[in-house]
Amino acid sequence: MQISMYQASAPRFANTLKNLSVILDKAQAYCEAKKYDPAALISYRLFPDMFQLSRQVQVACDTAKGAMARLAGIEIPKHEDTEKTFPELKERIAQTLAFIQTIKPAQVDGSEDKQIVMKRPSGDVTFTGMQFLLGHAYPNFYFHVTTAYNILRHNGVEIGKRDYIGQP
Amino acid sequence: MQISMYQASAPRFANTLKNLSVILDKAQAYCEAKKYDPAALISYRLFPDMFQLSRQVQVACDTAKGAMARLAGIEIPKHEDTEKTFPELKERIAQTLAFIQTIKPAQVDGSEDKQIVMKRPSGDVTFTGMQFLLGHAYPNFYFHVTTAYNILRHNGVEIGKRDYIGQP
Repeated sequence: MQISMYQASAPRFANTLKNLSVILDKAQAYCEAKKYDPAALISYRLFPDMFQLSRQVQVACDTAKGAMARLAGIEIPKHEDTEKTFPELKERIAQTLAFIQTIKPAQVDGSEDKQIVMKRPSGDVTFTGMQFLLGHAYPNFYFHVTTAYNILRHNGVEIGKRDYIGQP
Repeated sequence: MQISMYQASAPRFANTLKNLSVILDKAQAYCEAKKYDPAALISYRLFPDMFQLSRQVQVACDTAKGAMARLAGIEIPKHEDTEKTFPELKERIAQTLAFIQTIKPAQVDGSEDKQIVMKRPSGDVTFTGMQFLLGHAYPNFYFHVTTAYNILRHNGVEIGKRDYIGQP
């Protein structure tokens, strides 16, 4: 046995997205306890030209749904990126999880060598399925989840590595 | 064909560690250009009880070397965690890369179901090889590399997502 493309994708994205949702619960509870405006966290950036928290969550979701849809060869669900509150961001995650759960292993397995083309303003980039998943989707996905985590930690939310890793 | 445990581990860790080394080069050049003490960046934390930059780099290296050694069933190389400068941190990365390169695919392939025990003060945790790699080592590894990146971005180092992703 080796690792199937499904095993390396859907359950991994789903696990971390669920953890991110719990992290956002803790951020919301923190704002309520401290009487902070949640918008102060949701619009926070670690540097002026980095994405704010809400965008980090949106892009984490987009990376997961885009990877699953591209590997399965189906249309990527559209989201409007209008989330401005913790419940809305959690709903975005829930919709992404629901989409991931519609994809069956047979739709993704065997996509290791499938050609995946990412359209970019600077020119299209072509990957094999495995290269796309392991070298592009994974590091991007964990980047945005970790940066969301770092924004919240930097602002005093009491979360720890266990919240991020969850039950692997 | 599916993904082999080697394909999912050694080249992935190596690619991102090389990118991290280039990111540290840019951080060093930034300190030189701005006449900042490099120690100000190397000891920087995003929150008082988070790891400082040097520790993020050390733990990223430890996660990669530990994952490869555990999957291969060989002893984990020891490092003393004494790095205090950018060149020393880059040397730590180089040593980790050199160790990863000593491991042959045959040592790691087939370890999907191998029992991996992580010793913890709170009690041992047992994983299968695949669960350990995908659910534990990967998210931890990208967490520490991303947090190193975020520390540097937060302090004005001009790096971007391309530096982090490199050539997947």
